[in-house]
Amino acid sequence: MHNIDDVETEETLTCLRITVHHPLHEIKNVFQLIHFNKREKHMVEDPLKVGRDTKSCHISLYDLRVSRVQFSIQAFRHFNSSKLFFEIKNLSKRGKLIVNNTELEHLNKVELPKKALVRFAEFQLLVEKEDGESTESFDTFFELARTPPWQDILCAPSMSPVPETGILTNACTIPPHCSLQTPVEMEECELK
Amino acid sequence: MHNIDDVETEETLTCLRITVHHPLHEIKNVFQLIHFNKREKHMVEDPLKVGRDTKSCHISLYDLRVSRVQFSIQAFRHFNSSKLFFEIKNLSKRGKLIVNNTELEHLNKVELPKKALVRFAEFQLLVEKEDGESTESFDTFFELARTPPWQDILCAPSMSPVPETGILTNACTIPPHCSLQTPVEMEECELK
Repeated sequence: MHNIDDVETEETLTCLRITVHHPLHEIKNVFQLIHFNKREKHMVEDPLKVGRDTKSCHISLYDLRVSRVQFSIQAFRHFNSSKLFFEIKNLSKRGKLIVNNTELEHLNKVELPKKALVRFAEFQLLVEKEDGESTESFDTFFELARTPPWQDILCAPSMSPVPETGILTNACTIPPHCSLQTPVEMEECELK
Repeated sequence: MHNIDDVETEETLTCLRITVHHPLHEIKNVFQLIHFNKREKHMVEDPLKVGRDTKSCHISLYDLRVSRVQFSIQAFRHFNSSKLFFEIKNLSKRGKLIVNNTELEHLNKVELPKKALVRFAEFQLLVEKEDGESTESFDTFFELARTPPWQDILCAPSMSPVPETGILTNACTIPPHCSLQTPVEMEECELK
């Protein structure tokens, strides 16, 4: 045990609150590898990888429609700012990633706005950033949503991400339970 | 051995030609862990880390003035482009990274221009991109420069990187062999 005199002053951590939804989560148990309602710490230097591969991903989704590595979220700092910001990059060669109204293909990236809806396959992840002081690490906090969180966010025009250029889809016309119809990866027949 | 009929069509790889210089490289042997004059392949999904730590870095520099992880170079694609581009991010908490005329602090990042001079501690790395077709992997190719490559690049105004905002230094006034005077990491006393 450290003496409290020797310990560095505690800083608040930036937190990414991630509310996840899948229409069949109760049947397919796609979130069985996620630790819900628990803050988990990540170092800012390491990209946070999300995908099907439990070895290379920090956050694993148990579904064959998800690529081995689907996307990464990475911390960075703007010039002359001490705040952490995050960028999301699509790492899937086959599936598109939609961030609010912007479609990302393989290796496209955008800065995450304060509140972003990330969609791929039949997944919806609402990512909300709570600012903290530390620039060494940040937290994630996962919650499960039984109804899709897409409606609120997509109809608010101020919530668009900050792409270099982007393809806009009229997302407000998407029916709530539709699939994004990304192709299935067929080369691997079953989850290990 | 594969039959040539079964093998996928070979694509040319984007190559980062990296010409390195350190004023004391012959005495301190700081480049002893670099494989010179040899193309080495890297997957686009993985950030290429450069630093002192041989475990976490793909490219290791044998010098106590270098941070364990000094910086990363990452591939990405602009929207509606099939070309690979690269971004450099400073991962050192103590040392500045200078990319052409732009100073990067911890977690600041810029897109690498076609030709970039990267400086930290007493190191100079001239990074030149040769475009290729593949979007799955890229090569690096290291060469040793006995004289510092800084003069040509810093005096060409068109070669500035593309920062969001940046601090400009009048780099053309820097004498050729000066140190950038980044602080030394003191908490670790010797290389393992």
